[in-house]
Amino acid sequence: MGRWQPDARVRLQEAALALYGERGYEETTVAEIAQRAGLTKRTFFRYFADKREVLFWGSELLEQQMVAAIEAAPAPVSLLRLIAAALEAAAVRFEEVREFAGPRHRIIAASPELRERELIKAASLAAAMAQALRARGFGDTAATLAAHLGTTVMHVAFTQWIDDPARRPFQQIAGDALAHLREIASAE
Amino acid sequence: MGRWQPDARVRLQEAALALYGERGYEETTVAEIAQRAGLTKRTFFRYFADKREVLFWGSELLEQQMVAAIEAAPAPVSLLRLIAAALEAAAVRFEEVREFAGPRHRIIAASPELRERELIKAASLAAAMAQALRARGFGDTAATLAAHLGTTVMHVAFTQWIDDPARRPFQQIAGDALAHLREIASAE
Repeated sequence: MGRWQPDARVRLQEAALALYGERGYEETTVAEIAQRAGLTKRTFFRYFADKREVLFWGSELLEQQMVAAIEAAPAPVSLLRLIAAALEAAAVRFEEVREFAGPRHRIIAASPELRERELIKAASLAAAMAQALRARGFGDTAATLAAHLGTTVMHVAFTQWIDDPARRPFQQIAGDALAHLREIASAE
Repeated sequence: MGRWQPDARVRLQEAALALYGERGYEETTVAEIAQRAGLTKRTFFRYFADKREVLFWGSELLEQQMVAAIEAAPAPVSLLRLIAAALEAAAVRFEEVREFAGPRHRIIAASPELRERELIKAASLAAAMAQALRARGFGDTAATLAAHLGTTVMHVAFTQWIDDPARRPFQQIAGDALAHLREIASAE
């Protein structure tokens, strides 16, 4: 059963990730996850709608915090600075769940259904960021371009971060990726 | 039945778009599409796997042509020029299907299932472009960032193009969007 943990949600998430990794996502049932966590199915469903949502828990919070960072940055501020602020908020979240991030990413990568879900979450995040940028007075095109630029940098940085042998902070990797993108965009 | 058309595929596409627009995508059957086109279900299935694929016909061709443009551009060439070349190839394709593009876009926007499919196609396109950029000697991070930058510009330009009151060419709108993105990325 592993070491004792007071937090049922975290125990269920750890049990799910362990089972998805061992047996595959498709093959694992909610009953097995609950059993591995030493909890009941009833408790599972108090935290998660289904076995898929275990993997996407926290993505609304991530979106809210990235949007809040865009809303909170003092004016005047450029689009790129707002994107950087949103990425800083993401960095805080990601570092909190660092140990989950790699296994979670590999489980999602192995399942077309989960990859679809991940794409939908990313599109939702880009739309929410674009909305927040428009609310700060930027035009629709600029806001949409910048929001997608932000999710692109986040995606690229995330992939590097989870496998980084030097275990550099997400914030640093994202900053490098953003600088890299600026370089690409400014070249003739 | 509308005016006579020699091309069964185009007739089926027009019939499907008309019915999806009138009744909704969910409510339309393949039998109804075939009937509206004055053709049989058997003919329908000679061209399309199902009623969803009517809407995504040509996306493989688009991907191939954008990748081919990246492969064909004479060296030395910057990542941004390769992205611009891919967008030029997309422009040629889009102008060929201009009359379909708006109705198709609105049908997809109205259906979560179709929006998911569109996201998957966009992710596939970005991956194929990144692969083509790596094959031209660019690093993984740079190739991935540039490919997503390309699909972002394409997405934003496409949305403007289908509703453009001035009916400007896609090429021009995409060029403006790319310039806009360069401006955003270069601002402090």
